Amino acid sequence: KDRYQVCYMAGDDSGFDMMEGALLTLEAMDLPIDWIRADLGWCMWEKSIAKFGEGDPRCNTVPPETIEAIKKTDATLMAAITSKPGVKGFKSAILQMRQLFDLYINFRPAKTLPGVGTPLKGDPKIDVVMFRENTEDLYSAVEFRPLPAEMYEVHKGMERFKTKGEVAVSWRVYSEEGCERIIRAAFEYAKAVGRKKITNCNKANVIRATDGMMKEIFFKVAKDYPEIEAVEENADATAMWLIKNPQDYDVVVASNVFGDILSDEASQLTGGLGFAPSGNIGATTAIFEPSSGSVPKYAHQYRVNPCGILLTAKMMLDYLGLEDQGARLEKAIGEVLVEGKVLTYDVLRDFRHDPDWEKNAASTIEMAAAVGQKL
Amino acid sequence: KDRYQVCYMAGDDSGFDMMEGALLTLEAMDLPIDWIRADLGWCMWEKSIAKFGEGDPRCNTVPPETIEAIKKTDATLMAAITSKPGVKGFKSAILQMRQLFDLYINFRPAKTLPGVGTPLKGDPKIDVVMFRENTEDLYSAVEFRPLPAEMYEVHKGMERFKTKGEVAVSWRVYSEEGCERIIRAAFEYAKAVGRKKITNCNKANVIRATDGMMKEIFFKVAKDYPEIEAVEENADATAMWLIKNPQDYDVVVASNVFGDILSDEASQLTGGLGFAPSGNIGATTAIFEPSSGSVPKYAHQYRVNPCGILLTAKMMLDYLGLEDQGARLEKAIGEVLVEGKVLTYDVLRDFRHDPDWEKNAASTIEMAAAVGQKL
Ligand SMILES: CC(C)[C@H](C(=O)O)[C@@H](O)C(=O)O
Ligand SMILES: CC(C)[C@H](C(=O)O)[C@@H](O)C(=O)O
Repeated sequence: KDRYQVCYMAGDDSGFDMMEGALLTLEAMDLPIDWIRADLGWCMWEKSIAKFGEGDPRCNTVPPETIEAIKKTDATLMAAITSKPGVKGFKSAILQMRQLFDLYINFRPAKTLPGVGTPLKGDPKIDVVMFRENTEDLYSAVEFRPLPAEMYEVHKGMERFKTKGEVAVSWRVYSEEGCERIIRAAFEYAKAVGRKKITNCNKANVIRATDGMMKEIFFKVAKDYPEIEAVEENADATAMWLIKNPQDYDVVVASNVFGDILSDEASQLTGGLGFAPSGNIGATTAIFEPSSGSVPKYAHQYRVNPCGILLTAKMMLDYLGLEDQGARLEKAIGEVLVEGKVLTYDVLRDFRHDPDWEKNAASTIEMAAAVGQKL
Repeated sequence: KDRYQVCYMAGDDSGFDMMEGALLTLEAMDLPIDWIRADLGWCMWEKSIAKFGEGDPRCNTVPPETIEAIKKTDATLMAAITSKPGVKGFKSAILQMRQLFDLYINFRPAKTLPGVGTPLKGDPKIDVVMFRENTEDLYSAVEFRPLPAEMYEVHKGMERFKTKGEVAVSWRVYSEEGCERIIRAAFEYAKAVGRKKITNCNKANVIRATDGMMKEIFFKVAKDYPEIEAVEENADATAMWLIKNPQDYDVVVASNVFGDILSDEASQLTGGLGFAPSGNIGATTAIFEPSSGSVPKYAHQYRVNPCGILLTAKMMLDYLGLEDQGARLEKAIGEVLVEGKVLTYDVLRDFRHDPDWEKNAASTIEMAAAVGQKL
């Protein structure tokens, strides 16, 4: 392929600032990409309510045109959406798309960046790549509240809950296929890039049915990759050891909820959400989004750090097979961070400890342009 | 009450070393306590197999005499047990006792210790008290593997799993009573000791039935404590912010699995498992155990750090109402740590960065005795 179609979606609030910065930087690269714009998020929710009326089932954060745009393009770059989970009928756009497009891999690397470092003493080098399962587990939306009476009878363990007031149950569902494909994706990745070790984080010592199954499948798949060391450990221990011995982690594979928590922890050890890229990858398409939120309070003020979306764009370039361009982009970001002349407020405040961070802060656009210049 | 009965259980492996150290230190305090010995853990499992034969349902890690001893004493101090979860029929002693005695509070403070500090740059003062629910959630042992055919029909969300091979399901069960009592315990504690803020960590944005219920109950209970600030946040965000802004946390209340992970993370920020006390507290009794494991490889070598069990003993003294003695013990531990003359290998290696840590290491008993001397 020598040209790619990429769907881009600003989303909500500071998502617009990020996307504007990203497009500015990417323009400097002369990429073989046609950009197709689409919308989603809270803004679409409000629009659909205005159109169909509150309570209409067609109200959604993801309009049909957006679904079409994602389907017909090679990949999607998304900035950030605003979620208001208290609102009746509201469904998170990203959760919907993970299911709709069966984006079973949540790919979350956490790597110390030049000029950013880690909050840990001794500045360990961190380079962890987290494969988080992205469609099952407690994200399966198989839930009961209150629990129907007959559901107390299906397992003797439910007996003791009969006298405890209202009972809510969320099913943690793991399938063989679901476990196998995320584990295999992690091993395939490790093999392709020459990584040496994969750690599966679980609580098979306690949650035997689901995590027990995942652990079994992990070691079964591992047999196909004898050159890669396969280790399993308790997810609570991972939460500690990521801080104590982050260099011990290479590739990590975890189910949805553990992956959610552990990838956020790892990202904080390498600069936090302002720098954390994330890919939702399936068999037919992929949606890339920075892990950061849409920071509504700074919307349209161009304050937010563009590095998250730029590193996300790098991830997307790699996915498309444009690895050289991806490497160029990553290098340029690193240069701007090391030079330290054009930095957004959060970098000055949290990593440079600049007492004048308010005054010295560059805007999203200025920092994105600085990266563009390096290209 | 002017005398107390306390059940003490060494458990397995280095648990014996810890308990010996703890008893030595506590002796120096002249406490109004009668000590009653009991056994549990892997050693009891092996004994019961020798007695009843493998596969006999009476084989257990917790013998009936131990259950009696716990019942008839005021509190229990436990060192550490060895778990071998791969073994057929084996059930973790601590998980059994949490259920058997309905020990619904897992009380896990994480506080920077003098002479130990934190692995974080800038040495933030950390003083978080975690209330982890200890009986429900995915620890309810309501699990299915494989999932019986009729269970696919109870929720339309299960449709898509029909074609995905074997399916395992673990129920995350929350009861109204279960949520309310752990939340109320956290607020009562905050009120009693004058703490100002409670954070509930959940994923109510995604796992709506269970975490949605807990969040509702949290704010309902909070109304009874208007002087305490009540905040809720996503558990994945907590995993980040504990590292970024640990001083923002005061009291934290979380369900079982999130509490398991987040309390381990917090403990690592304040010295790690060698220093982490933990209490399993119910309405009628309580079992106190250090969070550390039984370190089988060092069993009977007196290498392990006694601070975990000593701080656990302090927690137990507080529980019994012997707060003055608890404070004395904590102070003595701090003095030994600050003086830095008698320290176990892990403290020298991980916190003093002593290149000669092997050579300079004190034994469990020496360090415990040093604390005893301060008393
Ligand atoms: C926003 C939320 C639904 C999402 C998740 O829980 O997966 C986020 O935390 C993430 O990690 O992408
Ligand atoms: C050993 C294990 C069963 C236990 C748990 O998962 O609760 C431990 O991790 C803890 O935190 O006390």
